[in-house]
Amino acid sequence: MLTRADYTAAQNRAAAMIRESGICISDEESQKVEVADFGLGRLEVEGAQILTLLATDRIAVKIVALFPRQTLPEHWHPPVGDDPGKEETIRVVTGDVRTCVPGDETMREGFVPAGQEEVYTMRHELILKPGEQITLQPGMKHWFQAGENGAVMYSFSTVTRDILDGFTDPNIKRVTEIQEA
Amino acid sequence: MLTRADYTAAQNRAAAMIRESGICISDEESQKVEVADFGLGRLEVEGAQILTLLATDRIAVKIVALFPRQTLPEHWHPPVGDDPGKEETIRVVTGDVRTCVPGDETMREGFVPAGQEEVYTMRHELILKPGEQITLQPGMKHWFQAGENGAVMYSFSTVTRDILDGFTDPNIKRVTEIQEA
Repeated sequence: MLTRADYTAAQNRAAAMIRESGICISDEESQKVEVADFGLGRLEVEGAQILTLLATDRIAVKIVALFPRQTLPEHWHPPVGDDPGKEETIRVVTGDVRTCVPGDETMREGFVPAGQEEVYTMRHELILKPGEQITLQPGMKHWFQAGENGAVMYSFSTVTRDILDGFTDPNIKRVTEIQEA
Repeated sequence: MLTRADYTAAQNRAAAMIRESGICISDEESQKVEVADFGLGRLEVEGAQILTLLATDRIAVKIVALFPRQTLPEHWHPPVGDDPGKEETIRVVTGDVRTCVPGDETMREGFVPAGQEEVYTMRHELILKPGEQITLQPGMKHWFQAGENGAVMYSFSTVTRDILDGFTDPNIKRVTEIQEA
C-alpha cells in the first residue's frame, strides 16, 4: 500500500531520473511511470519505477528507474500457453545495476534486503554499468539492485504479461494498491 | 560500392552522432556500426548507418543514424515461414525523421531523391520528433529521411532478417560492397 502522495512523488522522482539519464520522454509518458511496491509497503527498499514505452502482442520496451540501493525483487517469466516465456534484455543507461542470476555465489557489492534471505535465492552477482547489457532467458530467476546513485535501464523483451510473473516471495502482490487521501 | 576509407569515415561519424544523442555505446559497439549504401553508391543521398544492440531469434534493437537529409529507401518486411513479418517501432532520439507510410499524400518537409520518383511510392509523411514513435506493421511499405540536422532513432522489432526485406527499387543490394584500397 502506498499513499497517493507517495506514489506521485516516486513517479516524479523517477521521471526526473529518466530525463537526467538523457532519454527523451514526453510529459504524457512521465505521467505513466508505474510505481511498484510489490505490495510490501517499503518502496525505497523493495520496489521499482517502470515506464512502458511500447507493448504490443509481440514485443515490449520499458524503462526501469531504481532509486539508490532500491531492490527489484527476485522473479522469473514463466511459459504462457505456446509462449516459452518472456525473454528480456536489460541494458543500463546510468548507474550500476547489481544483477543476480543463477550461478556460483559472487555477491560483493549488493546485499539481500534485511530479513529477506529466504526469498532472494540467486546470489551470482553481475555489476552492469552504462552501455552494458544481459539477456535473461525465459524462466531464469533474477533480481536487480541499484548502486549508490540509483540506476536507469532499458528492458527490451518479447511480449510482457507482468501479472503472470513468478516471485520467490509469496507476500508479493504485483499490482500496487494506492491509498487515496 | 564504398571505399574502405568512406566506410570507416561514415562509421565514425555515425558513432559520434549516436554518442552526442546521449546514448552510451561501447568502443566495441562503435566499431560495429554498419554502413549501408544499398548498392547505390551515393551514401549521403540514399543510405543509413545501423548499430545492432541486440538480435535474438525473437527480438532486435538497433540504433539508426541518418546524416542530414539522408534517405533510407522504401522497403517492407515480408512474411517468413510462420512469421507474419517483422513488426518494427521507430522511436526518435534526436533530429526530425520524415517517415513515409501508406495514406494520402502529405509531403511537406521531405523530398524524394532526384530521379527516384518511381521507387518511392509512399507519400504520406509524418514528421517524428525526439520522444515520438510509430509502429510499422509487417508488410507496410515505409521510408525514412532525416531533417536538416540528421537524426538518431531506435528501431525496436521482432526478429530481424534484413536480407529478406523487400525494396521498391530493384537496383538495391542490401549487402554493402566495400572496395579495399
